[in-house]
Amino acid sequence: MSMTSGAPGIADRIRNATLAQRVTSAAEAVKYIEPGDTVAISGFASGGTPKVSIPALADRIREVRAGGSDFTINLLTGASVSTETEQLLSEVEGIALRMPYQSEPTARSRINNGQMDYVDIHLSHVAQQVWQGYYGHVDVAIVEVAGITENGELIPSASIGNNKTWLDVADKIILEVNSWVPAELEGIHDVYYGTALPPNRKPIQITRADDRIGQPTYRVDPAKVVAVIETHARDAASPLTEPDAVSQAIAGHVLDFFDYEVRAGRMPADTLLPLQAGIGNVANAVLGGLDRGGYQNLTCYSEVLQDSMLALIKDGTVAHASSTSLALSEAGIEEFVANIDVYRNHITLRPQEISNHPEVVRRLGVIAMNGMLEADIYGNVNSTHVMGTKIMNGIGGSGDFTRNGYVSMFLSPSTARNGAISAIVPMVPHVDHSEHDTQVIVTEFGLADLRGLSPRRRARVIIDKCAHPDYRPLLNDYLERAEALPDAGQTPHILGEAFSFHQRFQETGSMRG
Amino acid sequence: MSMTSGAPGIADRIRNATLAQRVTSAAEAVKYIEPGDTVAISGFASGGTPKVSIPALADRIREVRAGGSDFTINLLTGASVSTETEQLLSEVEGIALRMPYQSEPTARSRINNGQMDYVDIHLSHVAQQVWQGYYGHVDVAIVEVAGITENGELIPSASIGNNKTWLDVADKIILEVNSWVPAELEGIHDVYYGTALPPNRKPIQITRADDRIGQPTYRVDPAKVVAVIETHARDAASPLTEPDAVSQAIAGHVLDFFDYEVRAGRMPADTLLPLQAGIGNVANAVLGGLDRGGYQNLTCYSEVLQDSMLALIKDGTVAHASSTSLALSEAGIEEFVANIDVYRNHITLRPQEISNHPEVVRRLGVIAMNGMLEADIYGNVNSTHVMGTKIMNGIGGSGDFTRNGYVSMFLSPSTARNGAISAIVPMVPHVDHSEHDTQVIVTEFGLADLRGLSPRRRARVIIDKCAHPDYRPLLNDYLERAEALPDAGQTPHILGEAFSFHQRFQETGSMRG
Repeated sequence: MSMTSGAPGIADRIRNATLAQRVTSAAEAVKYIEPGDTVAISGFASGGTPKVSIPALADRIREVRAGGSDFTINLLTGASVSTETEQLLSEVEGIALRMPYQSEPTARSRINNGQMDYVDIHLSHVAQQVWQGYYGHVDVAIVEVAGITENGELIPSASIGNNKTWLDVADKIILEVNSWVPAELEGIHDVYYGTALPPNRKPIQITRADDRIGQPTYRVDPAKVVAVIETHARDAASPLTEPDAVSQAIAGHVLDFFDYEVRAGRMPADTLLPLQAGIGNVANAVLGGLDRGGYQNLTCYSEVLQDSMLALIKDGTVAHASSTSLALSEAGIEEFVANIDVYRNHITLRPQEISNHPEVVRRLGVIAMNGMLEADIYGNVNSTHVMGTKIMNGIGGSGDFTRNGYVSMFLSPSTARNGAISAIVPMVPHVDHSEHDTQVIVTEFGLADLRGLSPRRRARVIIDKCAHPDYRPLLNDYLERAEALPDAGQTPHILGEAFSFHQRFQETGSMRG
Repeated sequence: MSMTSGAPGIADRIRNATLAQRVTSAAEAVKYIEPGDTVAISGFASGGTPKVSIPALADRIREVRAGGSDFTINLLTGASVSTETEQLLSEVEGIALRMPYQSEPTARSRINNGQMDYVDIHLSHVAQQVWQGYYGHVDVAIVEVAGITENGELIPSASIGNNKTWLDVADKIILEVNSWVPAELEGIHDVYYGTALPPNRKPIQITRADDRIGQPTYRVDPAKVVAVIETHARDAASPLTEPDAVSQAIAGHVLDFFDYEVRAGRMPADTLLPLQAGIGNVANAVLGGLDRGGYQNLTCYSEVLQDSMLALIKDGTVAHASSTSLALSEAGIEEFVANIDVYRNHITLRPQEISNHPEVVRRLGVIAMNGMLEADIYGNVNSTHVMGTKIMNGIGGSGDFTRNGYVSMFLSPSTARNGAISAIVPMVPHVDHSEHDTQVIVTEFGLADLRGLSPRRRARVIIDKCAHPDYRPLLNDYLERAEALPDAGQTPHILGEAFSFHQRFQETGSMRG
């Protein structure tokens, strides 16, 4: 089966004699995947998705279907995977069930049309639920690695996600050994083998963002490895634009809030507490703004590491960042590779069940900062469903951090679509984070600190601080009329008008009407 | 200041000479409470509420107000407290802000009328948020104890709740030493002093429901104790009725589910995993049904311990129950006191930040079973707001256990008010537990296993298994028309009709119309 490969440096990457015998082509490898299989692949955000198996699998699905047979798989991943991967498999209508996250238009469209089942769960729950058997048997795992050690262990690539679990539970394993991944990445990973199902669970002994409790490699049963594919392919890049004025205004409010918390004695002055920030330009702007805050030795305990983190590490603002994935832009990838000797000492990549683990997030006192689609006047947050029905991406890790964080914040521009959509509405038509969990909401207009406030007080603060001025009269009018109802209740609403903003948008193209 | 008391056995209960000097009357003690104070009192469910300070405080508030001055306090507790307590302080309009839970009609009415601020938060968050200062300074703590040891430590009574925190953070402390509490209760408590604010948190080393990590007493700075009151007063009893046919049918489905999980290899056959059950008749019926399931050495990791648990302990079905409170009926109190030498070896009472701690709940793999007001067809659950606006009780610990449990279940009769209200609706007008967290819904008609299902599949299972047959056609009609909309989305809804059940109820007195 062994094939000669033109990939540079690949001989150094497959150092185990047994597994070297399994080298084959992607086209051959994907023959191990059968219609109806549950296939679990590597990848979390843009980092670490398999590069060549998926195009080959899409070809195989197309061919089988041309022969008159159906061919769909259930696809499990870490979170989102590369756009190309999601798109190829969606276009050939190859996915019956998708779990746990996606962010790609073709897949999204099929999900919203009812053509693809999508199960949108907290990222910290994925490994546990697969072990529990909620997604049936995992037939095949496809995992990208940076190399194979002499004793047959696997060196992870740019994300870990659920790879440890996929390798443990799958019947058959296809490895993509990618020699493009810098060899210096070896040692940056901390793969924890101490998780278990109850009643056999033990405390996870992490008390600082830079604690290491695992090993740098994945274990794998060589008997399960049916194919090894050699590649030399760049990671997909995460899109990133320069922070605009809105993102910078949001970042400014967040940084002021940190100062306020420090003065109140709730956070250490220099180091704050470990930061978590979701993916996107707003998060990137907040992190970028830390450079100007006089901080040093900050830490991050997050699920992704974006470009802004590299600059913070380089100038000493951030001492250590824990994550499960590198999600860098083209420029970020260049910078990371060029200075990997610096970065590797300040970054730890972990399995997502650890990067997002409720136990660790609560213990460390993580400052959770996530984006949202919209919040209502009482602090309920919709992160996932446009107009309450159409999935955007998924809840991802936002609930893992929000529910267990020390301070839980949601950041968003006050409007979308040139002002036609308000991010503050009377009632959100889908709740991903409840009023019990949301503590701070920030838009470019201000920061609403909801801690310790009853619902009616929250409503006034959210409208006054966060809503776009154009929408404040509409929101105040709703609130006042709801409060004036006989028997208005703890959380006043007019049920017949609760979604009036959304209905107006559906009818007129603007929530303004 | 020392007074002679008629309370039997009281001399044995106050064994510390310094604190014995502080014995006074309730009327004198509450003079330490000033208008505007934040007052934190003991009590979680029916167990351990102060018995005589609150009536005296209500009198003081009435007197001060008769003199022309206003007098309100902010009232912090463990969870609900005795009905009398809540009622007395609400009737004199003595509470400005209430946190974190209540279940009493007078207080509820004032909250829903906008006359009292109520902050409804997860019970595991209370201690942390008070330490963080979200509720300002705690001026006075009133804590019932069973006794004071020679070295000045305090023996807890029938609940712990947040008492450890109240004693630590309050400026002034009033102790009620209640000689009615059986002396044999000493040693049943496990008060953990290892919690801290980040960055100083350590793992909580509990790996089994019966692990003890603390000490049997509260510590207290004697200089802060301004008054000690002697009482000999029974705990309030929790109301309890015999399980009806509906509760028994729900219990039957739950027990069948446990069998199914055991056969699937997801739970140990004899011992299952630690059980948590909310307060109420349904939970009591489920626990009572375990007696007939062939189980032995079960454990419970819960926040309350109800009557049904006593029988399970007595016959060996349950080996150990961890809780923060005893919430027993009159008959349960009699049984507990009469056989306390048996029960004390099988029960551990903990602070609620530990009984409900996300870290421990996740590690142990707790089976979470909580009641609800209603669920929608996609699995979002409303636990708190009647018709979306009027608070019933509060979220309590339901989120602590649901969010981190191994299997998260909600149990409810399929209808309320003689069928006029359906517990399954198109969309819940308030979400306390999102679709991402709800795994199983049970009514007397059946059990909906939502694990691994996309929203549209969940909807069919919930309607078919759980909805009352009278409501199934209405629900199916809504779902089918929502799915038929162009661009129906991942989670189809007709926004203009999403609350049609609730609006029909408001207009006609029945969701049937």
